[in-house]
Amino acid sequence: MSDGPASACPLPLRDYAHVVLGHGAGGALSRDLIEGIFLPAFSNEWLDQRGDSAVLDSTGLSSGTALDIARHLGNAGRLAVSTDSYVVRPLVFPGGSIGDLAVHGTVNDLAMSGARPLVLTAGFILEEGLAIAALATIVERMARAAREAGVVIVAGDTKVVERGHGDGLYINTAGIGVVPPEVRLGNEPVRPGDVVLVSGTIGDHGLAIMSVREGLEFDAPIASDTAPLHGLVSTMLAACPGIRLLRDPTRGGVAASLNEIAALASVGIEIDEDAVPVRPAVAAACEILGLDPLLVANEGKLLAIVPAAAADAVLAAMRAHPRGRDAVALGRIVAAHTQLVVMRTAIGGTRVIPLPLGEQLPRIC
Amino acid sequence: MSDGPASACPLPLRDYAHVVLGHGAGGALSRDLIEGIFLPAFSNEWLDQRGDSAVLDSTGLSSGTALDIARHLGNAGRLAVSTDSYVVRPLVFPGGSIGDLAVHGTVNDLAMSGARPLVLTAGFILEEGLAIAALATIVERMARAAREAGVVIVAGDTKVVERGHGDGLYINTAGIGVVPPEVRLGNEPVRPGDVVLVSGTIGDHGLAIMSVREGLEFDAPIASDTAPLHGLVSTMLAACPGIRLLRDPTRGGVAASLNEIAALASVGIEIDEDAVPVRPAVAAACEILGLDPLLVANEGKLLAIVPAAAADAVLAAMRAHPRGRDAVALGRIVAAHTQLVVMRTAIGGTRVIPLPLGEQLPRIC
Repeated sequence: MSDGPASACPLPLRDYAHVVLGHGAGGALSRDLIEGIFLPAFSNEWLDQRGDSAVLDSTGLSSGTALDIARHLGNAGRLAVSTDSYVVRPLVFPGGSIGDLAVHGTVNDLAMSGARPLVLTAGFILEEGLAIAALATIVERMARAAREAGVVIVAGDTKVVERGHGDGLYINTAGIGVVPPEVRLGNEPVRPGDVVLVSGTIGDHGLAIMSVREGLEFDAPIASDTAPLHGLVSTMLAACPGIRLLRDPTRGGVAASLNEIAALASVGIEIDEDAVPVRPAVAAACEILGLDPLLVANEGKLLAIVPAAAADAVLAAMRAHPRGRDAVALGRIVAAHTQLVVMRTAIGGTRVIPLPLGEQLPRIC
Repeated sequence: MSDGPASACPLPLRDYAHVVLGHGAGGALSRDLIEGIFLPAFSNEWLDQRGDSAVLDSTGLSSGTALDIARHLGNAGRLAVSTDSYVVRPLVFPGGSIGDLAVHGTVNDLAMSGARPLVLTAGFILEEGLAIAALATIVERMARAAREAGVVIVAGDTKVVERGHGDGLYINTAGIGVVPPEVRLGNEPVRPGDVVLVSGTIGDHGLAIMSVREGLEFDAPIASDTAPLHGLVSTMLAACPGIRLLRDPTRGGVAASLNEIAALASVGIEIDEDAVPVRPAVAAACEILGLDPLLVANEGKLLAIVPAAAADAVLAAMRAHPRGRDAVALGRIVAAHTQLVVMRTAIGGTRVIPLPLGEQLPRIC
């Protein structure tokens, strides 16, 4: 069996005999791995919802174990739980480090459920030979990021692998948050007419990483946007408790997140090319590197699907918050072209924005 | 600055400029890393207790954030939280796989707090080139282990690193459990006269791994003891709610766990050489390989410190449980030689069992 796809679309996992980088890229190959390997083995009512985090709630549960667990946790309100591993290289980059990402990434996954992030666990896999001073710097940045986000790292673990079996440092964090009783994200389905908002410029994180890797220098250096978003989310929910859905467009970028939303909600999405906010330096770097900013990872931005009637109020609330100053309406949910994301171009045409297949930027987070 | 220790004991972390394998071995070098890097950066009232898992309880908390978090979680009873990364090689071994370890290891860390384990998160770091079939096998074993342990994997993440930057597959799991209100492990201090129990034979896991790596064959093959222990713990707590403390002697073996207990509780510990339960095949393999079974990792055993008056009852309860059939009293807590673990040898002498410095068996879990 070869390692290449035998047909163009959809890509059945069975045509890959071995893991390729694209299996970790958040696009169609990642989806194949999840749907072909992980979900069939682990399937349960929380995991199957495929959100950025799992909300341990008894609503709608039918299976015995899950219901039993929900009852045990029932008095806690609704716990949100999430995990991510971080394998970014380089370990330190303009605007952040793997330690900042390890806090912000998991905090943000919790925030996308409307949860207040409370505690994190941290697992470190160190490669033999890593400089202790480099580790100390990253751990200090991680601790500062946790303090600033108001989360506490309550449990940790360290493993060491031989030289040549790691890449300096990998970090996993898992997070627990509490979803306030009044938050009902996901209760109302996404529907045609809803507006797609984005909280700011896109592509900054990915291009900050790539500019270091490629040795590019720009007049205005590109810095990662890595930041915690739960404060912004809280402001947005106060402005409109009926926000339909939140996603942070990390791996695979805005294109992957919008495609996921279109697929899960069985709707079409239309975005306006003119509305896509990209910093000039990021746009220039994308041209040089042949990248599409819609496919590039962000670590401090979110997408929101909101009822049309509330869009202006949410946008105003976002713009009044430091993490949402550049928020814009990006497009809308439509009844046509179900499960497809389409961009209206500046010259009046349309093009489909597909779920990225595999890896545009390996090891981005 | 050299990579070797400048003095024998204690070993200041600053004498290492780079990470060595021993920093991940659960012995003195791991302690240096924790005390020199992680605790100073992340210090909080839960992490500082350095248990196998953190119990998110408001008892005794003084800091603002921690208290605030405890209040948010307060109604859940007491949540236990733990994390571990798994880097064992080979990925599949007699008696188990990295997938079984990833479930049992974290379930057991929760169980050592007396918690009922409820949910896990799972983070996978795959190396490019890993066979999809090998991944599927391990994921299926992991799913089976979770079902058998009664825990649900509610959130996951997959990253892929380039060929040569991983070792097939690393897994991180984090776990959440609930400590029943009546459980008060850790409320009563360990004190002289208390008895040290072990739930069965030691060294099986480590020697199962080593026999594969070294290509050793024995008449009776050595299998890992990997298993979930929360059922056994529940039985033990029913027999004696006043059990002082539980630990699972994984990395660094019984020697590391007993030294940790002696240090944290500021007591001496005395164990009897004749009482140490070791399977004949494990003892033989240890001789061939030059290993001390007290230093070898276990993945389905626990140590318990119990009041002398309850020792017989707890031992009887353990022996009546499938995971504790070979339980024995290993020794006792003493007032003498505070913070030292001493073994009474068969011929009547005594020798100190030190905290292992570094790595006897790399990549064991």
